[in-house]
Amino acid sequence: MAEVNAALSNPRADIAALDALERTLFSLRYAIDEIGSLGPVIDPPKATDERGEALAELERARVEALCDPAVGDVLERLAAIPELLSETQRAQIRVLARDRDALVRIPAEEQAAFSRLTCEAEDVWRRAKSVGDWEAFAPYLDRIVEARLRMAAAKDPGRDPYDVWLDEYEPGCDAAFYDRFFSQVKDCVVPLLADCMASRSKPGRACVEGRFDEGRQWELARDLVALEGVDEKALWLGRTEHPFTGGPSTGFVLIASHAYEDDVLSNVFSMLHEGGHALYEQGVDPAYRFTSLRGGTSMGMHEAQSRFFENLVGRSEAFAPVLLETLARRFPGQFGRVTPRQLYLAENCAEPGLVRTEADELTYPLHILVRYEIERLLFSGEAAAADVPRLWAEKYRAYLGVEVPDHTRGALQDTHWAGGDFGYFPTYALGSAYGAQLRHAMVADGVDFDGACEAGELAAIRAWLGEKIWRWGRSKDSAKLIQDACGEPFSPAYYTDYLTEKFSAIYRLGA
Amino acid sequence: MAEVNAALSNPRADIAALDALERTLFSLRYAIDEIGSLGPVIDPPKATDERGEALAELERARVEALCDPAVGDVLERLAAIPELLSETQRAQIRVLARDRDALVRIPAEEQAAFSRLTCEAEDVWRRAKSVGDWEAFAPYLDRIVEARLRMAAAKDPGRDPYDVWLDEYEPGCDAAFYDRFFSQVKDCVVPLLADCMASRSKPGRACVEGRFDEGRQWELARDLVALEGVDEKALWLGRTEHPFTGGPSTGFVLIASHAYEDDVLSNVFSMLHEGGHALYEQGVDPAYRFTSLRGGTSMGMHEAQSRFFENLVGRSEAFAPVLLETLARRFPGQFGRVTPRQLYLAENCAEPGLVRTEADELTYPLHILVRYEIERLLFSGEAAAADVPRLWAEKYRAYLGVEVPDHTRGALQDTHWAGGDFGYFPTYALGSAYGAQLRHAMVADGVDFDGACEAGELAAIRAWLGEKIWRWGRSKDSAKLIQDACGEPFSPAYYTDYLTEKFSAIYRLGA
Repeated sequence: MAEVNAALSNPRADIAALDALERTLFSLRYAIDEIGSLGPVIDPPKATDERGEALAELERARVEALCDPAVGDVLERLAAIPELLSETQRAQIRVLARDRDALVRIPAEEQAAFSRLTCEAEDVWRRAKSVGDWEAFAPYLDRIVEARLRMAAAKDPGRDPYDVWLDEYEPGCDAAFYDRFFSQVKDCVVPLLADCMASRSKPGRACVEGRFDEGRQWELARDLVALEGVDEKALWLGRTEHPFTGGPSTGFVLIASHAYEDDVLSNVFSMLHEGGHALYEQGVDPAYRFTSLRGGTSMGMHEAQSRFFENLVGRSEAFAPVLLETLARRFPGQFGRVTPRQLYLAENCAEPGLVRTEADELTYPLHILVRYEIERLLFSGEAAAADVPRLWAEKYRAYLGVEVPDHTRGALQDTHWAGGDFGYFPTYALGSAYGAQLRHAMVADGVDFDGACEAGELAAIRAWLGEKIWRWGRSKDSAKLIQDACGEPFSPAYYTDYLTEKFSAIYRLGA
Repeated sequence: MAEVNAALSNPRADIAALDALERTLFSLRYAIDEIGSLGPVIDPPKATDERGEALAELERARVEALCDPAVGDVLERLAAIPELLSETQRAQIRVLARDRDALVRIPAEEQAAFSRLTCEAEDVWRRAKSVGDWEAFAPYLDRIVEARLRMAAAKDPGRDPYDVWLDEYEPGCDAAFYDRFFSQVKDCVVPLLADCMASRSKPGRACVEGRFDEGRQWELARDLVALEGVDEKALWLGRTEHPFTGGPSTGFVLIASHAYEDDVLSNVFSMLHEGGHALYEQGVDPAYRFTSLRGGTSMGMHEAQSRFFENLVGRSEAFAPVLLETLARRFPGQFGRVTPRQLYLAENCAEPGLVRTEADELTYPLHILVRYEIERLLFSGEAAAADVPRLWAEKYRAYLGVEVPDHTRGALQDTHWAGGDFGYFPTYALGSAYGAQLRHAMVADGVDFDGACEAGELAAIRAWLGEKIWRWGRSKDSAKLIQDACGEPFSPAYYTDYLTEKFSAIYRLGA
């Protein structure tokens, strides 16, 4: 940081220091993203220890670079002279100051202790999940919540601790916001699902059942991302158990996914989902590529893009003929006699289940609702780890109508809490709601959404999302993106209306 | 580097600063190795620009960490109190001081520009090679040589620039040393090859010809590294045009290689070669893994290990039955009726050819000789990129008796110059000579070399090399390793004697 120290109150030197900081952060993030996301997918088993050390050191260097007191001074001085800065520079300073604030008030020892705790907890969780042993994991959950409460107090002593973390994953959102949002979702989805379950007109999945060669599923995976419009010249595709998308750079997005021989749709919708993340990463303005503005703006907005392509496009009736044709090209024997309508119904069976990652579009937000409500109770002190299994069972019974038979398919199913990620789950549901509102605005803007899906030519959809959302990277927060794209603030009604309309038709409710 | 600044003349603080520096360097090297070696193999095409920027920045950070004046002070103070340090710490300080000296005089901007230039040049070279377009690559070669001349002048203004780079790849060696070495090699190999070509008793390759399924060749590749004793739990195996071995860490060695359907031996000897590099990387004392002592001590010593397993083991008559059995397991139809003697002769046909990486053991050093002589001319200013194809053709005609039909199989065949690696090629020939001397010493020490090869159980060979060479990592230079392992200084006579004896017998010279 010699460049930073050299800058006194000379705007030109401060701007040079900003650029130097951005290059340093870019290279460290690039290394952390590539090693951290590719590593677990491709590295040999003995690579783990040294990879962990390398990642911890690179992360330490990133925090050190950002928390350098001289950086705080540079950012403050530059923030005071907005008239001398470009719009991009003003956004960089805002985002960098926020990233810095998120780190600078937490004592290094606290952060280090938290890393060690979650590293150990993830290990304990993995074993506990495999045998369904909640008691083994519970003490860790309590300790992690305590640590998160302390860290939130350090970051922002005047604020509700859960709000601190909700804001970190989705800037601008707090529990009051999510309470309203989830209340609307609950009021719509719980009775809607009950009606669907009571309907005598239920779609079936028989037409998509069978065994599907894994090698051909990987060819299909490539067809699907190509159909979505992901730039394959900037894509690496690999295999893993839990699908994810990573992005060391705008020109290098990686998707890791799975293929199960007995479930071709799992691969199909995982790929469409991850492809949506990839489109967002690839669509950020290349001018941002070496700055902190690169990448998606928040977890919720990222999830909005992935669920947009998974559900609003992928599971739409308009897209069904194109998807069927794509499936039939790789599996002519199995899809040659399926109709688009049959495929559409098979993709949209609403089935109350136990496992979030296997949930359909209608039940999905209820899985999130359960987690959100439990996180609220843990952070308000109204519940402790020991209460979680009971709460989990009660809420799954109340909202989804299912009985939880074991902790493996219950409160131990997700890795997020073991990693300390409280406040992350709600963004999953929020993303779906963002997406529904974006689709509405897109159509109001004249995009022929159904026509694009029917033609299997999504360029008009990509162009609209690219212009309104993707290109902005982190330079605008979600609330501003929604406002600018839709001409109004976020409203969950588009989402609940969409679900009501779609599932009432499929299940012939009120017919 | 707060830890470094904090250290005044307190040995304990200096040692802590040394440890902190080593952790920082470890993490940056890890990132540079992984991104730099895996990247070109697996990244999508559009990743190149940003990868280049990230690598340049990480390299800049590495240089900055090492060149920090406070680091120079710490190393000097510690070097003055050897009695308070462990043997490992003394070696760290020696190696770090040398690494620092190699960089401290090159301006950071020059180094960063060089990284960007070679990143771009490697891309241009790849395309140029595929279409044989020397003119596309030539301007890059000139620019890279100019950059290397400038950098050498900055590093050591009083020294011949080519010597500067020869010393960097093989500490202690200069052009005068290599001139003597290559003169002995040339005096032996050029007439020996001519005699072989004139012999009426020529081994044939018919028994290894045919088409070999690529998928099975990759299974064979795994068999071969397992047979060598490479730890597969610390190995990543991938595909590339130009085989290489990389090693982000002791627990993560990567080999990229190729398989040609019409040439099974190409894959076999590439794998045995790269496996030798992998054994060296994996064999370094684990106590060094987070220090600058990790990895092989020099290019020449690394090549000694790879050529040891490729040639001294892999192409020996003693190993032929085991290799044949391994081949026949994957290709029973094609190798079921071949005899070990036939295989031995087929793998040892001395065939003057165009491509270095496809060369046999006898002609190989002549390919290196051509490159060494051309590098000498480029660095003395007696030749420029435009002259290289003519020089290449003349020297291949003179030493190998072959006509060069195109640049793809001519001066564009290797990636080294595109990466700026001048002074690297000579180490390939030197490594073969080290290997021959090591084998002699090993046998004199009582290792049953032929017996180990015949049994296909190379543990005794690995144990000797592991103890004498591998475990020491960078803590000893090549000259010291050879002296300690062999009880005498390096001598090329073991190599020329070995070649003379082996090929005289195969070609029945003087019989």
